[in-house]
Amino acid sequence: MASPIDFWFDFSSPFGYLASERIEDIAARNGRDVAWRPILLGAVFKVTGGAPLTEAPMKGAYSIMDMARSAREHDIPFKQPDNFPIGAVAACRATLWLQRHDDDRYAVLSTPLIHALFRAYYVDGRDISDASTVLDVAADTGVDRAALETALGESTVKDALRKTVESAIARNVFGSPTFAVDGEMFWGNDRLEMLERWLASGGW
Amino acid sequence: MASPIDFWFDFSSPFGYLASERIEDIAARNGRDVAWRPILLGAVFKVTGGAPLTEAPMKGAYSIMDMARSAREHDIPFKQPDNFPIGAVAACRATLWLQRHDDDRYAVLSTPLIHALFRAYYVDGRDISDASTVLDVAADTGVDRAALETALGESTVKDALRKTVESAIARNVFGSPTFAVDGEMFWGNDRLEMLERWLASGGW
Repeated sequence: MASPIDFWFDFSSPFGYLASERIEDIAARNGRDVAWRPILLGAVFKVTGGAPLTEAPMKGAYSIMDMARSAREHDIPFKQPDNFPIGAVAACRATLWLQRHDDDRYAVLSTPLIHALFRAYYVDGRDISDASTVLDVAADTGVDRAALETALGESTVKDALRKTVESAIARNVFGSPTFAVDGEMFWGNDRLEMLERWLASGGW
Repeated sequence: MASPIDFWFDFSSPFGYLASERIEDIAARNGRDVAWRPILLGAVFKVTGGAPLTEAPMKGAYSIMDMARSAREHDIPFKQPDNFPIGAVAACRATLWLQRHDDDRYAVLSTPLIHALFRAYYVDGRDISDASTVLDVAADTGVDRAALETALGESTVKDALRKTVESAIARNVFGSPTFAVDGEMFWGNDRLEMLERWLASGGW
């Protein structure tokens, strides 16, 4: 199979959530896998001087309307959470721990956990910045809660997140979602269509 | 005919130029006209705290790549000008003077002049911040050069531009290009496809 689509996202990013619900179908239609790369936009914004979209004057109100409209177009359940944005350290660490797990029975749960965490926040309004919520969602996804709770405090897991964020910044990832395929980068949920045209045509 | 598509743009905006090359076909396919509304993003940014995209850390380099890629996809001639961004006061005033002209032989030249000015800047690299360049381009488009030169200094023309910008800000236009149809707003060249789906489907 050709190289995967790198998919960087912040669990707190509405457009990251919307893209997470569509990226696998786009990848599958074009013979690709998805490499899920959870990052913390807060760390990226320290480098770029960026700020949450919803806080920008005028653009903020538009973006909130636009998120809901973008969700409706694709029938994706979406409710802008009251508690927004949030810090998704525990969610990122849980995902990375699973992705790197030696036991395949754990590793295969990483993508279902990403979807479950996004939906917990953007459909059910649960506070996934709270580690205990992450543990609850993970347990419902089939992950051993006690093992994950231990893992969240391990330095190797903390390092994995730090390195994932540093690597994203080194590749000039400045927003969520960002996609890269064969060295070509696309930023934004509204670029999924262009990404697919690029994959289908081989680029232009 | 149904109400026109409002199309706000800054002559200095690369994505405004790219959208200007496609909006008329989209409008025509959906039984609409285009209402061309030239604005000065500099005035808008004073309200929003915005800044030119190309100057943003990390995002700037991406945006320059993305502009060229977006142009290539649609075979639109495009060369990022050395002198960028520019102030397009004269270009805006010339457009608005023609649009408001009592003589239809002048009014019909307003849209050709928009295209000619955008292409002078984004294809030929001419400095359209210079009023004499605007006059030259207008003359080549069939406009009376001396009459336009007089008009550029008239208070009614200056007022028309000021009011166009104020009206855009009042409608929460914060970027270029911005489209609105039947009260629905879309921001960005990469939303032309969504705008067309909205027009074709009647919205969602």
